[in-house]
Amino acid sequence: MIQIVEVSPRDGLQNEKVEVSTADKLALIGRLIDMGARRIEVASFVNPRRVPQMADAEAVVAGLPDVAGVSYIGLCLNQRGVDRAIASKEKGRGLDEAGCVLVASDKFGIINQGQSIEQGLEANRAMLKSAKAAGLKPQITISAAFGCPYEGAVPAARILDLARRMADAGAEEIALADTIGVGVPGQVGDLSGAVIEAVAPIPVRLHLHDTRGLAPANAWAGYQAGVRVFNSALGGLGGCPFAPGAAGNVGTEELLYLFDRIGESSGLDLAKAVEANHWFSTIMGRPLPSRVGKAGDFLIEGERVPS
Amino acid sequence: MIQIVEVSPRDGLQNEKVEVSTADKLALIGRLIDMGARRIEVASFVNPRRVPQMADAEAVVAGLPDVAGVSYIGLCLNQRGVDRAIASKEKGRGLDEAGCVLVASDKFGIINQGQSIEQGLEANRAMLKSAKAAGLKPQITISAAFGCPYEGAVPAARILDLARRMADAGAEEIALADTIGVGVPGQVGDLSGAVIEAVAPIPVRLHLHDTRGLAPANAWAGYQAGVRVFNSALGGLGGCPFAPGAAGNVGTEELLYLFDRIGESSGLDLAKAVEANHWFSTIMGRPLPSRVGKAGDFLIEGERVPS
Repeated sequence: MIQIVEVSPRDGLQNEKVEVSTADKLALIGRLIDMGARRIEVASFVNPRRVPQMADAEAVVAGLPDVAGVSYIGLCLNQRGVDRAIASKEKGRGLDEAGCVLVASDKFGIINQGQSIEQGLEANRAMLKSAKAAGLKPQITISAAFGCPYEGAVPAARILDLARRMADAGAEEIALADTIGVGVPGQVGDLSGAVIEAVAPIPVRLHLHDTRGLAPANAWAGYQAGVRVFNSALGGLGGCPFAPGAAGNVGTEELLYLFDRIGESSGLDLAKAVEANHWFSTIMGRPLPSRVGKAGDFLIEGERVPS
Repeated sequence: MIQIVEVSPRDGLQNEKVEVSTADKLALIGRLIDMGARRIEVASFVNPRRVPQMADAEAVVAGLPDVAGVSYIGLCLNQRGVDRAIASKEKGRGLDEAGCVLVASDKFGIINQGQSIEQGLEANRAMLKSAKAAGLKPQITISAAFGCPYEGAVPAARILDLARRMADAGAEEIALADTIGVGVPGQVGDLSGAVIEAVAPIPVRLHLHDTRGLAPANAWAGYQAGVRVFNSALGGLGGCPFAPGAAGNVGTEELLYLFDRIGESSGLDLAKAVEANHWFSTIMGRPLPSRVGKAGDFLIEGERVPS
């Protein structure tokens, strides 16, 4: 049994040039639930001037269907984000989890969020605590865990140390993010295994980008090292808006095909995912990057395996 | 140390709608050699009415540069193909290896080559023998080894049996081909390991298609199981001509990025491969499928790692 956290409504769309309406985002979330997704990252509480695609975060959260067993995640980059996530609970069903973010590189952190690693640690300690106090599951993503666009290699020892410190601060799940898609399977497997051991029994999740075509290989390496929770985006959405066709998040379809074929169930339905891909590509006005979404069916024991 | 067999001039182009001239094919082969490729599949001796893209096989072979240490492979689907490969040696430098093909599915074999598996075994025994007698290295690819478009799953035991029989018949290398890109890493690793054990010390090569985005994952699984020789195509060429953007062979760039980053050298230069990709995309009139070819550089220890 593996678990998929669907991030297409958030990481899949936050860099998109195509403006996706709140109604279409909610329709996408409905399709994800219908596919079987039970954890969905629905929005990011960021400054709407910096990320206009997420300006309707509150409207998306207000429109979320109340489906038993479904957990909704809001990404929170700072205390203001956590406060907005908490406020969503006062106006209705609200969110279930606060997804905090710690950037594992001083230079990247300062450029992107105006804070060093140490400042990020301090801020996230308070964020995790206030999320927990308000009834939101506090979890954190360590971003640039496998490489930084400004500093290059990120030492594995640093990631281990940050993971331990965030576990001590109350994070109930720790995600390792290959934010720029530079990781390779040996590295991803080794670091995932080490972090799993360091923070056990807290679950470790992988967030992988397919920028260099290696995200499924990295997911497989993580799985072999013990990871059982993976972020993915329908259609592999989330590529750079300035490079049409460029890969984004690892495609949900790719992970479903890979894990279904070894009998490792995620509870998500690949055929429905491919249908949802084709539907959403009409909203985006272009084919989505996922390769499984473009391939034909395959026959196993007389049954067609999409796609 | 791993070895890359570059197949872009053959499998990369044989389904292309864009007509690539003999001169451009030879220019491509020159770039591959300059990148460091030392084994190159340059042509397929098929019926030119069935595969017009390979109609100039003899002209390509006649134009091959005589570079020390470079081995050229011609694909031979039947005895006529082997005879043509042998004839190329009488007119100049010629080829070094005859790449024979055994289809591991009765239905696929009958549809594609008009012969059952048993008929294919018999034909290939003679082909391997005559190639060897003429001074061509006799090697064979077992195609549809991880799945068949008509029969679906292909039993691993059948592939093991076919590999043993072709080793007994004198094949000096055995390739397992995921012809339609349906394999998953667990399967590819397990079967590769079993075949390596069954035919040792004959080397086992993997030929992977990235149809479902899993070729790099499958290469990694094969590597872990002991495979050290991989086919790949510059730019991930070789997709279905009727699905623009569809993935083809695993990209040489993807394998170089994956293996370079773990210090496993292939002798090929990734920066030159990315340059060759961009050059060849101007010949093809479109971006090539490789994702590494589209990604930016990455910085490791102060040095830029393309791409």
